[in-house]
Amino acid sequence: MLPALVDKIESGNATVCVIGLGRVGLPLGVALASSGLTCYGVDVDPEKVSQVDRGEPPFKEDGLDELLRRVQRQGKFKATTETEKSVSRSDVILVSVGTPTTMQRCMDFSQLQGALKEISKSDLYGKAIGIRCTLIPRTLNDVIKPHLEEKSKLKAGKDFALAMCPERILEGCAMDELFNLPEIVGGVNEISNTIFTKLFKRINPKKDILYTSPTGAELAKLFTNIYRYVSFALANEFAVWAENYGEDAHEVIRIANYNYPRSRLPKPGFAGGPCLGKDGLLLDNTIFTSIVSTAWKLNEAIPQHVTESIRRRLGVLYGKRIAVLGLAFKAKSDDTRLSPCTKLVELLKGYGAMIQVHDPYVQGTLPIHEALKNSDVVIVAMNHPEFSNFAKEIDESGCKLVYDVWGIFDAGTFKKAAYLRFGRGT
Amino acid sequence: MLPALVDKIESGNATVCVIGLGRVGLPLGVALASSGLTCYGVDVDPEKVSQVDRGEPPFKEDGLDELLRRVQRQGKFKATTETEKSVSRSDVILVSVGTPTTMQRCMDFSQLQGALKEISKSDLYGKAIGIRCTLIPRTLNDVIKPHLEEKSKLKAGKDFALAMCPERILEGCAMDELFNLPEIVGGVNEISNTIFTKLFKRINPKKDILYTSPTGAELAKLFTNIYRYVSFALANEFAVWAENYGEDAHEVIRIANYNYPRSRLPKPGFAGGPCLGKDGLLLDNTIFTSIVSTAWKLNEAIPQHVTESIRRRLGVLYGKRIAVLGLAFKAKSDDTRLSPCTKLVELLKGYGAMIQVHDPYVQGTLPIHEALKNSDVVIVAMNHPEFSNFAKEIDESGCKLVYDVWGIFDAGTFKKAAYLRFGRGT
Repeated sequence: MLPALVDKIESGNATVCVIGLGRVGLPLGVALASSGLTCYGVDVDPEKVSQVDRGEPPFKEDGLDELLRRVQRQGKFKATTETEKSVSRSDVILVSVGTPTTMQRCMDFSQLQGALKEISKSDLYGKAIGIRCTLIPRTLNDVIKPHLEEKSKLKAGKDFALAMCPERILEGCAMDELFNLPEIVGGVNEISNTIFTKLFKRINPKKDILYTSPTGAELAKLFTNIYRYVSFALANEFAVWAENYGEDAHEVIRIANYNYPRSRLPKPGFAGGPCLGKDGLLLDNTIFTSIVSTAWKLNEAIPQHVTESIRRRLGVLYGKRIAVLGLAFKAKSDDTRLSPCTKLVELLKGYGAMIQVHDPYVQGTLPIHEALKNSDVVIVAMNHPEFSNFAKEIDESGCKLVYDVWGIFDAGTFKKAAYLRFGRGT
Repeated sequence: MLPALVDKIESGNATVCVIGLGRVGLPLGVALASSGLTCYGVDVDPEKVSQVDRGEPPFKEDGLDELLRRVQRQGKFKATTETEKSVSRSDVILVSVGTPTTMQRCMDFSQLQGALKEISKSDLYGKAIGIRCTLIPRTLNDVIKPHLEEKSKLKAGKDFALAMCPERILEGCAMDELFNLPEIVGGVNEISNTIFTKLFKRINPKKDILYTSPTGAELAKLFTNIYRYVSFALANEFAVWAENYGEDAHEVIRIANYNYPRSRLPKPGFAGGPCLGKDGLLLDNTIFTSIVSTAWKLNEAIPQHVTESIRRRLGVLYGKRIAVLGLAFKAKSDDTRLSPCTKLVELLKGYGAMIQVHDPYVQGTLPIHEALKNSDVVIVAMNHPEFSNFAKEIDESGCKLVYDVWGIFDAGTFKKAAYLRFGRGT
């Protein structure tokens, strides 16, 4: 049966079901539909489903809108809340539900478990199941595989294909990266690898496919994100040192990197978000996690450091009106999950400050002029490209202090307000 | 006076004195001499001076031998122990003495202070002094500058030029990198920057010159090295995780990096040496050094981790004969300062093992066949390229276990001995 599935995918006759229409699943489903496969996009949230069904992605992603509407017109993509029916009609099931963390910093696998339960209701014989989530290493081998085998009374690798295929796209560049990034495929056996190779090659026949074990694939995803997160933490540590020594970390890092083959330091700034902000936790309960837990401690301390820097300058924050520009966790994104900007807002509120937030990407925030109005302090918390145009508005808002987390402005930009920059000593 | 020095350097009539004929100073002096300047190479060690005088560099460095002998034939380079006389005859003084650490993990600045004392004996009017050492930030501003100004009764930047020009070469590639790497110049003022720009442009007119403050230059050097050191620590942490999860870190890291724009993880292995092994300490006494001190703890724990892995496999190490291949801190180097291999040897000796060391680059170690003779365990501790040819010799040595720190061999290489690889679970 499984070799027949290989042919079905190659000839474009296979049907795919993507469970979870978030920032990972929807772009993937749309990309597969655009490759000619029929695709069901499943989500438990009826509002999200009807939004997608109207051709409106529930988040910003360059190029997704047009492609979604195109595959819908072609009848290749259908959003639905009916998981069981979609799974039973499909040949390939891709699980891309969220794996967030709980308040106690444990993984919340409830969405994954819900998806597995729904999948198990169908006859899985001859189907292929691919896991696109970020997982604790060995979850496929020790949880997902036994669960599916027990419920289906079938054998993974023989009766149904099973593989870990981690997502590694950059939010905002998902469509481009889905076409160009290599895919890591950790199948339980060779036929599982072959099926998912054929599937991803439909998106782009030139895509690199990298093979490893399911656990290797889980680790590779974590290594990639944690490496980035630790690099940001180090840049942030350097930023605070530079402040202590009265230097500008942005400038020193630029010089250290310039045409130097062994230095690729990122810029200092807020590091967080739904992936980087929690992926280290997936390895956090092992015995040997000193660098990663330190990086977490350090990056999470930066909003507090910003708050303290402003507090030292102003005395008390109680009753102060503070305009915070930026709420998303990264530039050009509307995603605020685990954003250091939201943490900054919480901290400032805790000290009794009145917060006025503007973020051009995030719905429900104030327009720029309202956010700046009567503000004592302006914090440029995110490096959205739009903010560099606001120098005049900020300077003329009457605020006494501008705090620039990302070094967007030069020291001499503001004539009326004092200027502090994260990573620059004064 | 200082503008005249600019012309003197440009026309090739300047005389340079390099204090410290180590792995930094000797290549620099020889490179400047080969650019047509007359150069004194000064060292307090008479044996080193007479060795250099015979045309024999006291360490390995590709291309240095020939260039040294050429500039000596041309009468452009003279090694000497006479610091004061050399300084007084020179227009530019470059200080490249060592700045190692003490047993208490403090910086040992005695060589630097000795050099400053000697320099101060000469009339510094119209001369330029460049510091090529690795320093605690603000050392030039807070120690070197006041020292020289007080002793000379002159003003830095006006009467003599002064700049921090940190070295950033890779040992083993010093000659190549001296010609090609950008130079960071942190002068006390513009004329100081101009003088050292002209000096470095003599080595290669196309060299990039990057300007910053003296403290910025001190920080840039530390940022560069610490970034590398932390990257190694993270790879080592990943290696131990991979071991715990029964996977091979070398393979997972290869996959994570492959054609992926946001992942440049190094390979796991020993990280140490006279620069990386101590540079973090130069920032270690500040309040905010969590990542770097964690990286130090982690990298320094790897030799112990190797020892423990072998001990768990063998039971006791007491009386065991262990061949250690590699003693230098990096591949193709004869430098054993702060080498994790020397730490590994110390640890094994502490458990009562009998150690037989072979390193093709390090004098005084055993030939390969003597090192392997009657060994119970062979540890491939350094990734010298020669070692990959020794598979047959190792397998036929009669050893029971091969431990491969760098993943030089494949798991199936050894027919008679068990095989352990750092970062690979079993």
